[in-house]
Amino acid sequence: MFPHHTVVRLQDTDAAGILYFANQFRMIHEAYEELFDKIGFGFARLIKDCDFFLPIVHAEADYTAPLSVGDKLEIIISIEKIGQTSFILNYRLTRAGQVVGTAKTVHVSIDKRTKGKISLPPPLREALTKVK
Amino acid sequence: MFPHHTVVRLQDTDAAGILYFANQFRMIHEAYEELFDKIGFGFARLIKDCDFFLPIVHAEADYTAPLSVGDKLEIIISIEKIGQTSFILNYRLTRAGQVVGTAKTVHVSIDKRTKGKISLPPPLREALTKVK
Amino acid sequence: MFPHHTVVRLQDTDAAGILYFANQFRMIHEAYEELFDKIGFGFARLIKDCDFFLPIVHAEADYTAPLSVGDKLEIIISIEKIGQTSFILNYRLTRAGQVVGTAKTVHVSIDKRTKGKISLPPPLREALTKVK
Amino acid sequence: MFPHHTVVRLQDTDAAGILYFANQFRMIHEAYEELFDKIGFGFARLIKDCDFFLPIVHAEADYTAPLSVGDKLEIIISIEKIGQTSFILNYRLTRAGQVVGTAKTVHVSIDKRTKGKISLPPPLREALTKVK
Repeated sequence: MFPHHTVVRLQDTDAAGILYFANQFRMIHEAYEELFDKIGFGFARLIKDCDFFLPIVHAEADYTAPLSVGDKLEIIISIEKIGQTSFILNYRLTRAGQVVGTAKTVHVSIDKRTKGKISLPPPLREALTKVK
Repeated sequence: MFPHHTVVRLQDTDAAGILYFANQFRMIHEAYEELFDKIGFGFARLIKDCDFFLPIVHAEADYTAPLSVGDKLEIIISIEKIGQTSFILNYRLTRAGQVVGTAKTVHVSIDKRTKGKISLPPPLREALTKVK
Repeated sequence: MFPHHTVVRLQDTDAAGILYFANQFRMIHEAYEELFDKIGFGFARLIKDCDFFLPIVHAEADYTAPLSVGDKLEIIISIEKIGQTSFILNYRLTRAGQVVGTAKTVHVSIDKRTKGKISLPPPLREALTKVK
Repeated sequence: MFPHHTVVRLQDTDAAGILYFANQFRMIHEAYEELFDKIGFGFARLIKDCDFFLPIVHAEADYTAPLSVGDKLEIIISIEKIGQTSFILNYRLTRAGQVVGTAKTVHVSIDKRTKGKISLPPPLREALTKVK
C-alpha cells in the first residue's frame, strides 16, 4: 500500500467542468513514478541506467464521480500480480475517503536493445514483492 | 466506420522515446470529437446547447507497438453497443495498415442539471445507429 | 514569496529526453493555483462562485537548463505589478538551488457575463498586495 | 509562410470553458513540427539521426480572444530571425480570418554530445532561409 496525494489542477479539467478522463491516467502514472522512486527504480534510473524498460501494454480506468478543480485526491497503488515477464498494478483514487475512480496498468519487461520481452529483472521482482 | 488521421507529436512522446500511454486516450478522444461533429453532436453543441452530457465512465487501451514522433496514424471508431442510457465505442489505431493499438470508451447519458443517468436522447440514439 | 514544490514527471518530458517546453507553463500555473488557494481565491471558488475571471493575456518563459524526469523543482512566485485591471506574476524555477527557468504571466480581470475588462475586485487586490 | 490547420479539442480547454493557455504552446509546436517535416528536418530525423538538437530557450504568447472547443484555427509561422547559433519563429493564430493569438519561440542549436551551442548546421540554415 503506497499512498500518493495530488490535487486536480485547472489543466486536468475541460470545458465540461470536470476532469478530462485521460488525465486520470496521468495522475495514476505519477503515483507509479513515486512508488518506483521509493523502491529504488525511479524513472531517472529506469531511463538512463537500466538495460530494461517497463512499457505499459494495457491500461484501464473507471470513473465513479465527477472530479473538479481543487479536489484533493489520494491514490493507493496495490500490486495485483507479479508474473514472469510482467506485472499488474491497481490504483484506487479517493476524495475525502470516498472512492472516485479506479485504474489498472499492465507492464511488461523488455530488453532495451532487442525490444523483446524478458523476465522481470530479479532486483525489480524482489522490490515489487516487498510492496505486495 | 469513421477514419480519423493524426500524427504522433513531440508532446505525445516521453523520455523513453515513445508515445506516453495516456496520450493514446487523447488521440482516440479527438477521433470521437470528429465523429460526433460529423453526426451533429459536436462538443461545442454538447457543452453549450444540450441539456445532457456524455461522461466517460470506463476507458481502456491496449498498446501493441511502440509509437514514435512523426508516426502517421489512422484511428477507426466503431460502435460496439448502444444501450438504454449508455453506449460503447471501440477504436482501432493503425500505422501503415498495421494495428498498433486499440481502445474502448463507455459513455453514459446524464442530465446536466440533476447529474442523474437518463435515456440516450432519441436524436443522438438515431445518429449513433446510423454510424453503426 | 511563495514556494511551490514539484517533480518533473515522465509525461512532462518528450523524446528529446528533457522537459517539453510547454509543460513548464503547466508547472508555473500549478504554483499559481496553489498561491491563489492560499490567499482565498482558489480555482474552485474562482470558477464556481466569483463573477469575475482572470484570463492570461500574455505568458512567457525562459529555459536555462535542460530538465529531466525525476528532477525536483522549487517554483517561487513574486508579484511584479498590480495594475488597475491586471496583474503580472513572475516565476523562478530552481533545482538544487540553481535557477533552471523563469516565467511571467499577465492576467486581466474580466466580468464573466460581459466578458469585458473590469477593475480588479478589491478583495483580490488586497489579497495580492499582501503577497507582494 | 506556412499554414497549419488545427481544431481546439476538449482536452485543450479547461473548466473556465476556454483554451487553457499552455495548450496554445502545444498547438504552435505542432505547426513547427509540420514545417520542419516539410523542409526535411522532421522530428523523427532530428531526434534519431541528427547530431544536433534545437531546444527552445524562450517562448512567449499573447491571447487576444477566448478560444472554445471546436474552434477551427489556422496557424501561420514566419521566421523572424536566423542568427549564428539560433533562430526565432513567429506564429499567428487566426479563427475565421481574425487573429486570436500570437506566439514566438527562440531556438538554439546545440551539439547533442557536448550540449554546447554550435552554429546552425548549414543544411538547416539553408532550409530555413528558403522558408523566409
